[in-house]
Amino acid sequence: MGEKLSDSALDTIFRTARTYNGYTDEPVTQDQIRQIYDLLKMGPTSANQQPARFVWLLSQEAKDTLAACATGTNPDKIRKAPAAVVIGMDEHFHDHLPFLFPHTDAKSWFEGDAKAALRHDHAFRNSSLQGAYLLIAARAIGLDTGPMSGFDPDAVNKAFFADQPNVTVNFIATLGHGDPATIFGRSPRPDFERFNRVD
Amino acid sequence: MGEKLSDSALDTIFRTARTYNGYTDEPVTQDQIRQIYDLLKMGPTSANQQPARFVWLLSQEAKDTLAACATGTNPDKIRKAPAAVVIGMDEHFHDHLPFLFPHTDAKSWFEGDAKAALRHDHAFRNSSLQGAYLLIAARAIGLDTGPMSGFDPDAVNKAFFADQPNVTVNFIATLGHGDPATIFGRSPRPDFERFNRVD
Repeated sequence: MGEKLSDSALDTIFRTARTYNGYTDEPVTQDQIRQIYDLLKMGPTSANQQPARFVWLLSQEAKDTLAACATGTNPDKIRKAPAAVVIGMDEHFHDHLPFLFPHTDAKSWFEGDAKAALRHDHAFRNSSLQGAYLLIAARAIGLDTGPMSGFDPDAVNKAFFADQPNVTVNFIATLGHGDPATIFGRSPRPDFERFNRVD
Repeated sequence: MGEKLSDSALDTIFRTARTYNGYTDEPVTQDQIRQIYDLLKMGPTSANQQPARFVWLLSQEAKDTLAACATGTNPDKIRKAPAAVVIGMDEHFHDHLPFLFPHTDAKSWFEGDAKAALRHDHAFRNSSLQGAYLLIAARAIGLDTGPMSGFDPDAVNKAFFADQPNVTVNFIATLGHGDPATIFGRSPRPDFERFNRVD
């Protein structure tokens, strides 16, 4: 058990953090991307599966390619952001389990055609957890994020994972130093009673 | 953009935090559960869907009920933990969008039988994000967690969501003040190059 977070830290990762639609010109660096990954990879996944695969987009060309796959108002946000990331999931994550979970034969739990649906569910759930860790980690090191699910997944897969047929996109996000002028009013948050029960 | 987190705070939520298999006798309180929810609900979900549904288990009877649905070594961990939580997902989350995302008719994006697969994907992805926010929020207020996916989902659904046919379990977790004697050696974490690319 670690030390409790300060009010200021809770604000940074949850309470005053917001989803940004635009950013200042300050760049996102390779070093910051590695800092984010070095934090997010410590987050728990089932049997340490770590099924998420990340493509970080720093070049304008790469951001333009992702923008061309996005829908609604997302293309403009992606083109203008200092950085973006494609969070993919590898449905053959089990090939890496002899390295990631070495003390037992976890790979065998997921092998074979009969396990395809199980592999999909595990890859989807755990890469989503890792995507959430990414958003929190980015905020924790002083960046802002703009997660999105408005894009054509087939187009993203073709553009970024053509050489990895077992990898498909889960969601995408922009990254940078948020411009407060680009955020909307906060959407309502539910009271505890609405979606919780204590047994 | 908030203040960067201290090294100590990064340790608490990511670096030295661990998945616990057992806890001290110190209880988890109703107040702590509400603190966790008040933080996690601030985390971003697509169109503020908030599809996760939480059943928090404080009574021994409720923990025993969940333990009876779990597999492997999980039943004993659940029975002995100060608290547990069932993280469910509501595939009819769109019924709540007029409240949660009031500035446009987002409910209509998800209505009808033709959207069932889209609803499932959104509920699964976003309730997983919320599950990750829960784990981070619990750590942030000084608790430890033990997330698990080893259980019979049909049995959990019957035991905890029988009255909500649109809600199914995503994953479960124990909560408490971790006993360091119950953790295993940390599983290996990958280098940046293994699962990342910068374009």
